[in-house]
Amino acid sequence: METLAENALKKLKEVHKPEIDKRLGQKIMEEKKYFPLEHEAFEKEVEFLYDFNMRGGKRLRPAFIVEGYLAVGGENIDAAYDASIAIEGSEAYLLIHDDIIDNDTLRRGKPTMHVMYKNYLESIGLGSRAVELGKSLAIVSGDLQAVMNYHWLLETDFPDELKTKVVLKFNHILRLTNYGQLLDITLETLPIEKVKEEDVITVHSLKTSAYTIWGPLQIGGVLGEATEDQLNAFYDYGYNLGIAFQLQDDILGLYGDVKKTGKPAHSDLKEGKRTLLIVKALENATEEQKRELLGILGKKNLTDEEAEIARDIVRETGSLEYNKKLARELAEKGLNAIKNADIEKEPKEYLIGIAEFLINRDV
Amino acid sequence: METLAENALKKLKEVHKPEIDKRLGQKIMEEKKYFPLEHEAFEKEVEFLYDFNMRGGKRLRPAFIVEGYLAVGGENIDAAYDASIAIEGSEAYLLIHDDIIDNDTLRRGKPTMHVMYKNYLESIGLGSRAVELGKSLAIVSGDLQAVMNYHWLLETDFPDELKTKVVLKFNHILRLTNYGQLLDITLETLPIEKVKEEDVITVHSLKTSAYTIWGPLQIGGVLGEATEDQLNAFYDYGYNLGIAFQLQDDILGLYGDVKKTGKPAHSDLKEGKRTLLIVKALENATEEQKRELLGILGKKNLTDEEAEIARDIVRETGSLEYNKKLARELAEKGLNAIKNADIEKEPKEYLIGIAEFLINRDV
Repeated sequence: METLAENALKKLKEVHKPEIDKRLGQKIMEEKKYFPLEHEAFEKEVEFLYDFNMRGGKRLRPAFIVEGYLAVGGENIDAAYDASIAIEGSEAYLLIHDDIIDNDTLRRGKPTMHVMYKNYLESIGLGSRAVELGKSLAIVSGDLQAVMNYHWLLETDFPDELKTKVVLKFNHILRLTNYGQLLDITLETLPIEKVKEEDVITVHSLKTSAYTIWGPLQIGGVLGEATEDQLNAFYDYGYNLGIAFQLQDDILGLYGDVKKTGKPAHSDLKEGKRTLLIVKALENATEEQKRELLGILGKKNLTDEEAEIARDIVRETGSLEYNKKLARELAEKGLNAIKNADIEKEPKEYLIGIAEFLINRDV
Repeated sequence: METLAENALKKLKEVHKPEIDKRLGQKIMEEKKYFPLEHEAFEKEVEFLYDFNMRGGKRLRPAFIVEGYLAVGGENIDAAYDASIAIEGSEAYLLIHDDIIDNDTLRRGKPTMHVMYKNYLESIGLGSRAVELGKSLAIVSGDLQAVMNYHWLLETDFPDELKTKVVLKFNHILRLTNYGQLLDITLETLPIEKVKEEDVITVHSLKTSAYTIWGPLQIGGVLGEATEDQLNAFYDYGYNLGIAFQLQDDILGLYGDVKKTGKPAHSDLKEGKRTLLIVKALENATEEQKRELLGILGKKNLTDEEAEIARDIVRETGSLEYNKKLARELAEKGLNAIKNADIEKEPKEYLIGIAEFLINRDV
C-alpha cells in the first residue's frame, strides 16, 4: 500500500507539474503580443525568462494554490491552474533578483539571469561592460516578470470580486516574502551574538511558511471562497510546517550526510549562517565554548576537526536537542491543524502527505 | 490675464501637489502595520522609502490621473487622489532600481537609495561590505515599494469591477515602461550607427508618452468609466506630446543655454547619448562628417571646439531642422487631439495648459 506522502508526491509530479508547466510556458510566450516593436532586445528578454522559468522546479507552490482551491470546494480547476502560475512566476522574479544580490552564477544547474545576459553581451562583443550591464538587464527582466505575474492573475476566469481579493492576497504574500528577505540580509550583517531566536524564526515564517505554504494555500482558498476557519487552518498548517522544515534543514546541514544532502561539506559553518542551532548554542555556551564557536563560524578554510568541534558544542549546549524538539512540536501542530480542518477529503490527504514528506526527509 | 499654462502649473503646484503629498506620506507610514515584528530593519526600510518619496517631485503623473478622472466626468475626487499615488510610488520604485543600474549617487539632490543604505551600513560598522549590501537592500526596498503601489490601488473606494480594470491598466503601463527601459539600456550597448530612428522614438513613446502622460490619464479615465473615444484622445495627446517633449529636450541639451538647462556642458555628447539628433545626422552625413562625429561622441574630455563641430554637423546635415519640425508637428497633433476631445471643460484647459508648458520651454 502506498503512503499518503508517496501519493501526494506522485500527484505533484504526474498531475500538477505537467498542467502547471504547460500553462507557464504558454503564458510567457504570450508576452510577445505586447512587444512595442520588433527588436532582439525583447525577443531575448522573453527567451531568457522562458528558459529560466522552464528549467525545472517541483512546482510545489502553484500546486498548493490548486489544492487549496479544491480543499474548500472550488470546482473550476482549469481557472485555478491558470491562477497558480502567478506564484511560480514570482519565484522566478525573486530568484532573478536574489541571484544578483548574492552574486550567484548558477541556478538549477544553469547560468543565473545576470550571467545569461553577461554571456550574451560578451557574445556580441561587449566584454568590458558585460558584467555591469548584465546585472542591469537582469533587474529589468525580473521587474517584467513581476508585471507578468499580476497580469496572469487578472486574466483568470473568476469574477471581479474574487480577482480583487486574490490580487490583494497575492500582493500581501509578496510583501511578507520581501520582509523576510530584508530581515535575512540584515541578520547576515549583524554580529551573530546579536541575532535573536525570534529573528531566525521570523525569517523562516516569512520566507518559507508564508511564501511557500500558507500563502499559496490561502490564494487558492480565496478563489474557492473559503471560510475564515479554512483560511486559518491553512495558516496554522503552513506556519508551523514551514518553520519545522527549515529547522530540520539546518540540522541536516550541520549533521546530515553530505552525500545525501548534496550541500558542500560544512557550508553553513563556512558561511557563518545564522541558524537557530548556532544562535541557541551561543546563548547557552560557556565563555570558552562561545569563543571557540565564534572562531570557527565564517572560517573559509575550515577543517573537518573544527567542524566536529562546532557540532559537539551545538550538541553539548543542548541546542541540537532544543531544535529537534521544536521542529517535532511544530510539525505535529501543523499536521494536526490540517487533520482537524473542515476541508475536502482528497486535498486533505494530499496536504497530510506533503507534510509527511517535508518533515521526514533524511537527506 | 493668465495663460492656460500658468493656470495649469498653479493648479498642479497649489491644488494637486499638496493633496498627493499628504496621501503619499500617510500611506507609506501605514506600511508599519504590516511589520511582522519590531526590528530596526523594517523601521529603516520605511523611513528610507518615506524620505525618498517625499523629497520633492512635481507630481505631474498622479495629477494626470486625477485630471483624467475629472475629464471623463468622475465625481469621487477623493478616491481619485487615493488611487493617484500608486503611480508616484512606481516612480520611486523605478528610480530606486534605475539608480542602481546607472550607479548614480544623487537623486533630487540627496543620496540615492543604495547610497542611503551604504551610508547607514557604514555608520553601524559594516564599511567593507556596505557598497554591495547597500545595493542588495535597495533592490529589496524597491520591490517593497512595487508591492505597496498595487496595495494602494486596491484599497481605493471604487467598485471591484473598476479596480480589476485599473490594476490591469496600471500593470500594463509598467510593462510598457519596462520595455522602454530595456530598449534604452540595449541601445546604449549598440554602436550608434546601428540605432534606428524608430528605436529612439519607441523609447520616448514608452518611457515618456506611456509612463508619464497617456498612461496616468487612462488610469484616471478607467476609474471614471471613460468611453473608448476619450481613452483614445488621451493616448493621442500623450503619445505625441511625450515624444515632442523628449525631442525638444535633446535639442535643448545640445543647443540650449547651459545656465538655463542646468545640465553639465555637453553632457549628452560626452555620454554618447543615442538621440535622434545624432542618429539622423549620422544617417545624412558625408563620410568625413560621420568620421568626425563618431570621434567626438562619448569623448570624456571633450573641448568646447569639438562640441561646436558636433553642433555644426547636426545642423549642416539637416538633422536639427528635421528634429525641430518633427517635434513641432507632434506637439500640434497632441494639442489638437485634446482640443477636439469630448471631455469636461476645466480638465481640458488644464491638459492644454500643461501641453503648452511642456513644449514651450526654452530652458
